[in-house]
Amino acid sequence: MTDFASTKKMFHLPEGVIYLDGNSLGALPKAAADKVNTTICAEWGEMLIGGWNNAGWMAEPSALGNRIGRLIGAAKDSVVIGDTLSIKVYQALASALELAADTGSDRTVVLSDNGNFPTDLYMADGLLRSLNRGYQLKTVDPETVETSLDETIAVLMLTEVDYRTGRKHDMLALTQKAQALGIVVIWDLAHSAGAIPVDLSASNCEFAVGCTYKYLNGGPGAPAFIYVRPDLAEEVRPALSGWLGHEAPFAFDLTYQPGRGIERMRVGTPPVLQMAALSASMDIWDTIDMKDIRRASIELCDQFIQGVEAKCDVVTLASPRIGAERGSQVSFRFEDGYAAMQALIHNGVIGDFRAPDIMRFGFTPLYVSAEDVEVATKVFARVINEKLYDRAQFHRRAAVT
Amino acid sequence: MTDFASTKKMFHLPEGVIYLDGNSLGALPKAAADKVNTTICAEWGEMLIGGWNNAGWMAEPSALGNRIGRLIGAAKDSVVIGDTLSIKVYQALASALELAADTGSDRTVVLSDNGNFPTDLYMADGLLRSLNRGYQLKTVDPETVETSLDETIAVLMLTEVDYRTGRKHDMLALTQKAQALGIVVIWDLAHSAGAIPVDLSASNCEFAVGCTYKYLNGGPGAPAFIYVRPDLAEEVRPALSGWLGHEAPFAFDLTYQPGRGIERMRVGTPPVLQMAALSASMDIWDTIDMKDIRRASIELCDQFIQGVEAKCDVVTLASPRIGAERGSQVSFRFEDGYAAMQALIHNGVIGDFRAPDIMRFGFTPLYVSAEDVEVATKVFARVINEKLYDRAQFHRRAAVT
Repeated sequence: MTDFASTKKMFHLPEGVIYLDGNSLGALPKAAADKVNTTICAEWGEMLIGGWNNAGWMAEPSALGNRIGRLIGAAKDSVVIGDTLSIKVYQALASALELAADTGSDRTVVLSDNGNFPTDLYMADGLLRSLNRGYQLKTVDPETVETSLDETIAVLMLTEVDYRTGRKHDMLALTQKAQALGIVVIWDLAHSAGAIPVDLSASNCEFAVGCTYKYLNGGPGAPAFIYVRPDLAEEVRPALSGWLGHEAPFAFDLTYQPGRGIERMRVGTPPVLQMAALSASMDIWDTIDMKDIRRASIELCDQFIQGVEAKCDVVTLASPRIGAERGSQVSFRFEDGYAAMQALIHNGVIGDFRAPDIMRFGFTPLYVSAEDVEVATKVFARVINEKLYDRAQFHRRAAVT
Repeated sequence: MTDFASTKKMFHLPEGVIYLDGNSLGALPKAAADKVNTTICAEWGEMLIGGWNNAGWMAEPSALGNRIGRLIGAAKDSVVIGDTLSIKVYQALASALELAADTGSDRTVVLSDNGNFPTDLYMADGLLRSLNRGYQLKTVDPETVETSLDETIAVLMLTEVDYRTGRKHDMLALTQKAQALGIVVIWDLAHSAGAIPVDLSASNCEFAVGCTYKYLNGGPGAPAFIYVRPDLAEEVRPALSGWLGHEAPFAFDLTYQPGRGIERMRVGTPPVLQMAALSASMDIWDTIDMKDIRRASIELCDQFIQGVEAKCDVVTLASPRIGAERGSQVSFRFEDGYAAMQALIHNGVIGDFRAPDIMRFGFTPLYVSAEDVEVATKVFARVINEKLYDRAQFHRRAAVT
């Protein structure tokens, strides 16, 4: 049973701030600064080029992949980190399409939903356009994905948890139905990894991707991860065939030969300093059972929904009311949501805003407590009911909200 | 006139080590640890999600691009950093091919040379295969590139300085000849940026890419950069169309619209901690004139060649003897080169080895002095002449050399 009072002490949070935006950028694990400093001074500074072997930098993408893999139900050596989520989406979709084509099928549709994070759609669209094989991206409403599955579809590519509302797809059911129709399945776990239990092995999906700077607390710009189902790992040929995915990068062959298993999904030189920060966060995650996270997360979200609804009647819940149907966030719709969020932040409760009217709050049991949620609901009610947001300065739009 | 005695004090080098491998991983700028620590503690820790705007993280890829741009003769706002060099090669080649096709040409050959760094060839091969338009990658000997240029070629993609020998292509002459034949030109500046003066504007090439962890001392896994000639910046459509290259990333549109100018070559979330380290290094580079670097670099390289050749007659110079024809490295061929390099490292002189027989030494005036080179030649001569390498432990092959 995880003691969340003690995990909370492992994070730095600014004085007087309740941070409900760990679904966008996770908070700082206190150990990260020292870990990165050691990587800089004792490794880069002292070992120089030797750090790649002697400090284990070269092996770290797979080591981190395995540590993340435990949290998402992935078999050993089926996850590797690197690049950004956009790049990993591209790799997964390119390999998924090749897998689909290898069966001799002439399906041309990639199905996604309009609740998917835009970069997934952008990357998919760019890839399909460049492939020049008549592929098309089709996006439907999230609620109609299941009924939209048919035998014209080559690949189903979805984000499990909607970044706006927190609505959670049924990964197992959708994957089973899709695969029964011969569709290859990719899951984006950006809002799942570290937020809710995921069992990739049970889902049997072919590919998954995700990022590590949200619930996994890897820091700003932390690398992404990619999962390939173990039975396919030696079969897929990576679209982004970089030297660190080569079977022998330091042989400097002129011809690409994909590396062993998941290693082939590596592309270029891994970001050593970002990996050090992520590693400090994974030191905490290594001790955590996702079932404890889920239980605590649902309690915090329920507490927030009930607290807000009891105090404010002008906001509308945008998230599913039932915990099992959500990720680890709660969103409310409110017409003046942008200004209200600025006022909330001004009053020490940090969430974020997504157009047109969504006030979004992430709940991260590792460092958000029931006491925090209690305070947050009171501040929320005060901001809304006393219209504290109704001042000019909160209506200015910033580039990033 | 750069005072290299004072720049040398800005770098940390391990006690008793002469570091001649800055062409692989640059040394640590002393200010980097504090700068990254500030980014972690004062920015990530205190500003949390607000760091993207308030700490300037979102603007940093372009800011760093401009600082690098000054060193490579690029106009303002024509360079942006991000991803790895492999990814940037892919982006540049994809856009170059589109540019070539836009002229209505049906050319299908991408020309490179077998001295190009393998990942460039791997990425190119993977891209061409996926494009499904009959493109083929042709590689010739570096010496025959000029005579191989003809009107079958769509894109010429070369690394200016050969990673093995340091042999430097004539960027201006090759670009002019290629463009006169209607060929789009990409230069990889991995071993040029911070090593030798580059004038991208004068060369008139369409695209350039490079990395920042070698001569630019950005640290292990530091991001890459990409240049697009300003008149093309609004014309190219990026192949890797990620959300941070969108004209309004935080509008979360479902449809991709390329961003303004070079910003569109961004893909995903930039690596904030790596950028902080790179920024510390650029604080030094901002004060440097590349002409001073070039003068000092040629002197150091000449001194090393003369010193080694005066003392050892069993090694063969693999680099051009004339300074103007080299980058900022010197390589010698030696049959027992691998073991000899291990013995050199054991004796405090760090270079590296590239199969089959190349002992490679990078010269970085910012932190390598004439005194260092004097000592290095003596150690080199002792290792070779006294066969200090002739011990079993130096013959074991490590994964990374």
